[in-house]
Amino acid sequence: MLINCVAYQEGRKLADIQPREIHEYVRRPECFIWVALYEPTPEELETMQREFGLHELAVEDARHGHQRPKIEEYGDSLFVVLHTVELAEKGLSVGEVDVFVGRNYVLSVRSRTERGFADVRARSEHEPELLRHGSAYVLYAIMDAVVDRYFPVLDALEAELEEVEKRIFSGQSNRAIIESLYLLKQKLMTLKHATAPLQEASSKLYGGRVPQLCAGLQEYFRDVYDHLIRVNQSIDSLREMVTTAISVNLSLLTIQENEVTKRLAAYAALVAVPTMIAGVYGMNFENMPELNWSLGYPVTVAVMVAIDGYLFYRFRKAKWL
Amino acid sequence: MLINCVAYQEGRKLADIQPREIHEYVRRPECFIWVALYEPTPEELETMQREFGLHELAVEDARHGHQRPKIEEYGDSLFVVLHTVELAEKGLSVGEVDVFVGRNYVLSVRSRTERGFADVRARSEHEPELLRHGSAYVLYAIMDAVVDRYFPVLDALEAELEEVEKRIFSGQSNRAIIESLYLLKQKLMTLKHATAPLQEASSKLYGGRVPQLCAGLQEYFRDVYDHLIRVNQSIDSLREMVTTAISVNLSLLTIQENEVTKRLAAYAALVAVPTMIAGVYGMNFENMPELNWSLGYPVTVAVMVAIDGYLFYRFRKAKWL
Amino acid sequence: MLINCVAYQEGRKLADIQPREIHEYVRRPECFIWVALYEPTPEELETMQREFGLHELAVEDARHGHQRPKIEEYGDSLFVVLHTVELAEKGLSVGEVDVFVGRNYVLSVRSRTERGFADVRARSEHEPELLRHGSAYVLYAIMDAVVDRYFPVLDALEAELEEVEKRIFSGQSNRAIIESLYLLKQKLMTLKHATAPLQEASSKLYGGRVPQLCAGLQEYFRDVYDHLIRVNQSIDSLREMVTTAISVNLSLLTIQENEVTKRLAAYAALVAVPTMIAGVYGMNFENMPELNWSLGYPVTVAVMVAIDGYLFYRFRKAKWL
Amino acid sequence: MLINCVAYQEGRKLADIQPREIHEYVRRPECFIWVALYEPTPEELETMQREFGLHELAVEDARHGHQRPKIEEYGDSLFVVLHTVELAEKGLSVGEVDVFVGRNYVLSVRSRTERGFADVRARSEHEPELLRHGSAYVLYAIMDAVVDRYFPVLDALEAELEEVEKRIFSGQSNRAIIESLYLLKQKLMTLKHATAPLQEASSKLYGGRVPQLCAGLQEYFRDVYDHLIRVNQSIDSLREMVTTAISVNLSLLTIQENEVTKRLAAYAALVAVPTMIAGVYGMNFENMPELNWSLGYPVTVAVMVAIDGYLFYRFRKAKWL
Amino acid sequence: MLINCVAYQEGRKLADIQPREIHEYVRRPECFIWVALYEPTPEELETMQREFGLHELAVEDARHGHQRPKIEEYGDSLFVVLHTVELAEKGLSVGEVDVFVGRNYVLSVRSRTERGFADVRARSEHEPELLRHGSAYVLYAIMDAVVDRYFPVLDALEAELEEVEKRIFSGQSNRAIIESLYLLKQKLMTLKHATAPLQEASSKLYGGRVPQLCAGLQEYFRDVYDHLIRVNQSIDSLREMVTTAISVNLSLLTIQENEVTKRLAAYAALVAVPTMIAGVYGMNFENMPELNWSLGYPVTVAVMVAIDGYLFYRFRKAKWL
Repeated sequence: MLINCVAYQEGRKLADIQPREIHEYVRRPECFIWVALYEPTPEELETMQREFGLHELAVEDARHGHQRPKIEEYGDSLFVVLHTVELAEKGLSVGEVDVFVGRNYVLSVRSRTERGFADVRARSEHEPELLRHGSAYVLYAIMDAVVDRYFPVLDALEAELEEVEKRIFSGQSNRAIIESLYLLKQKLMTLKHATAPLQEASSKLYGGRVPQLCAGLQEYFRDVYDHLIRVNQSIDSLREMVTTAISVNLSLLTIQENEVTKRLAAYAALVAVPTMIAGVYGMNFENMPELNWSLGYPVTVAVMVAIDGYLFYRFRKAKWL
Repeated sequence: MLINCVAYQEGRKLADIQPREIHEYVRRPECFIWVALYEPTPEELETMQREFGLHELAVEDARHGHQRPKIEEYGDSLFVVLHTVELAEKGLSVGEVDVFVGRNYVLSVRSRTERGFADVRARSEHEPELLRHGSAYVLYAIMDAVVDRYFPVLDALEAELEEVEKRIFSGQSNRAIIESLYLLKQKLMTLKHATAPLQEASSKLYGGRVPQLCAGLQEYFRDVYDHLIRVNQSIDSLREMVTTAISVNLSLLTIQENEVTKRLAAYAALVAVPTMIAGVYGMNFENMPELNWSLGYPVTVAVMVAIDGYLFYRFRKAKWL
Repeated sequence: MLINCVAYQEGRKLADIQPREIHEYVRRPECFIWVALYEPTPEELETMQREFGLHELAVEDARHGHQRPKIEEYGDSLFVVLHTVELAEKGLSVGEVDVFVGRNYVLSVRSRTERGFADVRARSEHEPELLRHGSAYVLYAIMDAVVDRYFPVLDALEAELEEVEKRIFSGQSNRAIIESLYLLKQKLMTLKHATAPLQEASSKLYGGRVPQLCAGLQEYFRDVYDHLIRVNQSIDSLREMVTTAISVNLSLLTIQENEVTKRLAAYAALVAVPTMIAGVYGMNFENMPELNWSLGYPVTVAVMVAIDGYLFYRFRKAKWL
Repeated sequence: MLINCVAYQEGRKLADIQPREIHEYVRRPECFIWVALYEPTPEELETMQREFGLHELAVEDARHGHQRPKIEEYGDSLFVVLHTVELAEKGLSVGEVDVFVGRNYVLSVRSRTERGFADVRARSEHEPELLRHGSAYVLYAIMDAVVDRYFPVLDALEAELEEVEKRIFSGQSNRAIIESLYLLKQKLMTLKHATAPLQEASSKLYGGRVPQLCAGLQEYFRDVYDHLIRVNQSIDSLREMVTTAISVNLSLLTIQENEVTKRLAAYAALVAVPTMIAGVYGMNFENMPELNWSLGYPVTVAVMVAIDGYLFYRFRKAKWL
Repeated sequence: MLINCVAYQEGRKLADIQPREIHEYVRRPECFIWVALYEPTPEELETMQREFGLHELAVEDARHGHQRPKIEEYGDSLFVVLHTVELAEKGLSVGEVDVFVGRNYVLSVRSRTERGFADVRARSEHEPELLRHGSAYVLYAIMDAVVDRYFPVLDALEAELEEVEKRIFSGQSNRAIIESLYLLKQKLMTLKHATAPLQEASSKLYGGRVPQLCAGLQEYFRDVYDHLIRVNQSIDSLREMVTTAISVNLSLLTIQENEVTKRLAAYAALVAVPTMIAGVYGMNFENMPELNWSLGYPVTVAVMVAIDGYLFYRFRKAKWL
């Protein structure tokens, strides 16, 4: 589906154009075209390939989707694959944005993701002095937007860990906590899969031999790279803390086991001792003087209660009860 | 066993030829020969060595098999060892494809694997404009096919993990789950052994100093490399999740243990308390007034039942039962 | 909030100046200006940007804060982000110091941190022969101060680990120990986040291609780098020891469990054996000669006591009690 | 002890010579000498040092032994330390082979190892076209032999792991299994110590700047390197699987514990319930109508048996028994 | 404290000199001075700084101590920090040796360590042909001595691990074993802190761009480096084995727990069954024929004994007792 197809000149919007007019505008050196597609049909992609002269392998990647994040040079143009990560009801939902960038065009192909880049386009159009940098600036703006959207996801995962930590340390560990930790680990792996390859790839855009297209915008791309490092380091910390939480939780479970065993033992003692005493006076010996005492029974019961009272006090003190 | 021996010219099939005619065709600069062998006899290999002038060490590797995946240059020619991985009934079955590539020949030697490369040859013959690239394109096509066949294996292993996860979190952990996790880990190691060395080796075919043979096809080999990275990252994630699943499962087992202990304790209490009361009234004191009450017995039994009822209610509420 | 704004010449203080006079002093090649801001308003930052001609992206970073530690070159000037780490009541409190350094100015922007750099300024003013090195020396002095302040934090964490170790090995493991280990791990991760990126970044200031500004002060920056390596290695050791402590603690918990079980069993035996004997003599057989013996009862009780005495002795010897 | 001292010319054996004649043969450019020593006396070593002009530090290393595997250049000559690993009754036995290689001599010094290199010499003498490459080829042949002898050791360790796996998953885990896993880990570490440094060192012999001596034999040394990578990757896999096996075994032990607890509980229940019922009818109430029923006793016993039968059936179904 | 201050010429001792004469001897190009200090006063250090013209930052490091091992170049001279590690009663005691080396002087500053370098000086003076190499040779001799002294420490730690292993596998695991493993890990970390940074630093002295001073002695420094690699690899192995030992020990503890539980259960059964039988015959039914049999009592007791005998036999066979 075609979302937008706009020609820009000197940082300002020139006109909304039709896909079939693209090749006319592409010819003009002073202007560039920014096309946004959403889950395009093969025909739409083919039109774009023809109008912009895109490389076969890149178009095929965009057609099949499910690429890993990467930045590839095809001659003078770039093919960039970005993964968007959104909080979904269950786990994270990963989408894909494929961006083709040439000297005077940008084509973004978005799939499996709800949120588009209308706000990026709007903001860019309000800053003509920056948009004047041309197509590479648009690439920067899209990458920046994708990367910025990782942060709320990361914050949500951090909040999730804090929530689980609270549950671990305040009260009883249970199956739900363990499952939460496992799911959290899974989500971190999912996020990492989106961000780690991109960090590696994006380092090519600001240091060493930079693609011709991006020259002059290196400080912007370094900014994106910097954000990605921040995301990745936070993910790594979270992963390490999740692992620590799992092993700490196992220790707490073992303590809990110890406590249960102790409590059981205490209660067992409270029952077993009177049972033993009762057993003794249940013996059938002829000559058991206590049996004939008139206070034999109440005294025995009193002794039982006294012993249990004492045991109870001792167990309480030892924190077994 | 000789599967195929075909000469190609300008991307089109010229003729099925006999092994002994090879050296005639190899001389012609404009054509190349593509030979496929399946578990060849030493004599067949020797014939090929003589016809194509293959290097002794490479032929020896192919004769012995059981090499690790690698890409070696012998002068102008390449010797490539690939591992095929197929889903077998028990675990994974690993086969080997050794490919000798020279300016105008490709020799593939397949062993311990069921599926051949007939489809690769068929597809290549339908795209003469690509096959025109010569022997290096055939190498690409074979590598691409081998690597593409890793994905269904990977998917199967991912499905296996999901299946085990479901069993871990919904119900009782048992020996079978643990054995599944161990076997899954083993399979991941097997797959990794096939893919990791190949990723490392294949990076030589598209960046930096590329073998003369592969020049001009770098974007294709980068694609293969890219797929290998994707496979390897997925394997690493799966390995990490398996490790996490093992430790999470241990926590769940400890919880299960706690639960069993608690339930036991609860039932023990339900039996021990009436036993104690009965013991008390089994004492032989002469002066136990309750014994003479006409309702002594039913009241005592009622008290036992009442206490057990109360305990049962409490244990239920505390989730011990 | 403006803390200080001073012009220096030849290593000596020239005058306290007003922000609006800065551009006059910046023009003079022989002097440099050192401005310190604390959580500045956007207007203050804007003034500084105008007076010193700071790069937009760097100023934006300072405005937003929450950057990761880094050292970035913008043309001839440097933008340095440092994290301060202070011991707070609960966990560590992380602040930020952003430093803009040009040929003849230093602007430090401090936020979320209590302790300032008044002492650094005072010490520098007492060593005019060093301050004469100019703005880069001030950068060194600030970095050195920030890094030196990591050591007491590290010492506190080391003391914390030693304290926990003592509690682990001398007495009973409990929840509090495990929570302490977890929190310690968290603090180490926090500290690492401040120091690890800075180590990496600061290596750029003394080896290889050094920014023009820092030339001649490389041995000073190497010293800072050296301290950072020391901090980071200590953090890594601490992290490894915390992990070891967690797993060692789990072993101790299991031993504790064994001990509790053994003690329970011993006490159970002390109660169960007399109960069994009493049960035997509680049987109603007509023909039980012992029942008629006049010493039957005291002998039986004596036997019970004797058996318990013996068991008690055996359990003591086996360390079950 | 001198094992062999032979002069070769053009790949063929010239003569068995005496150590004191060595310097005469060494002078002739067209021939080379291959000396094999076994645990030599200091005097023998000194003779060799004098005859071949060996470097003091290398000779000292050979004298002391217990070096780590390495390949060192001393001017034009090489000093190579190899570790042999043999299966011994208890664990692995590690020996050492020190090889001095110069333009026209090879001196191998073997210690703490049973198997020598007579077969290597024999095979080399049968392939004069290869032996013609000179002393570097002999170095290759010795390295190849040492490395090839790692494979049966590796196979034995793999078989050992499989054996332990079988015991883990089929039956009861016990101390012996755990000790086996620990010893296996130890052996893997021992083997790794022999192979890992050698892999690193041997990479110098085929890529980048190759020692003058080895030029022309790079494809042979690459083969050795390749085998070493294969050994090391297998060792790493085995180590990882041993670690996994240890943790999987712990889970199985916990399951076993659960099972034992459940079984105990079931048997306890089978005994406790009749005891409680018997207790009730052991009470001395005057008015217990059941006591006077003529069938009271057999009915009660029947009820006890029936309850136990039912419990037994339930426990069986729940797999507690 | 000044230990020694000696001038050497052509590898031979010239004279014991006074600190205040140093500058006279330093001027002579053909001789060098070797000074040894032990925990010097600030004044002593200042004298040395003046006499040798040492760099301020290096002297400050030596004054403060507690540096990490490193090798720093200050112009033509080197500043080397070494850590000595000695076996102390509790743990390891770490000392420091700071060495300043210039073209014709060596100054060693030793602190917190018992053993000095008198033997190094003595040995060096007996080998004038080596000492002739000058100050760099003295640096080598000191480094070599420090590194050689790591080996007995390493051996002690290896022996400690073997001792712990024996205790783990032969008998009952207990707190002391776990504490030993933890302390061993701590000692390994301490040793690693001394050796790992030094390995890294010392690689600068033999490969690539070597400091002018050390040229010609590269093979000696490579030897030191080699020893350090050996130490570090052994430390890493030991660390890994300690980790394995901890987890293996946990498994053994769990087995021990299983065994204790089983033994308890067995004994409980031996007591519970007779109790149940006695309970049955303690019931007060009027019509219990067995009670009137004259052999009722002895037969019942015999049955109890027989059942217990049988149970005992079964438990023994199942290894529960």
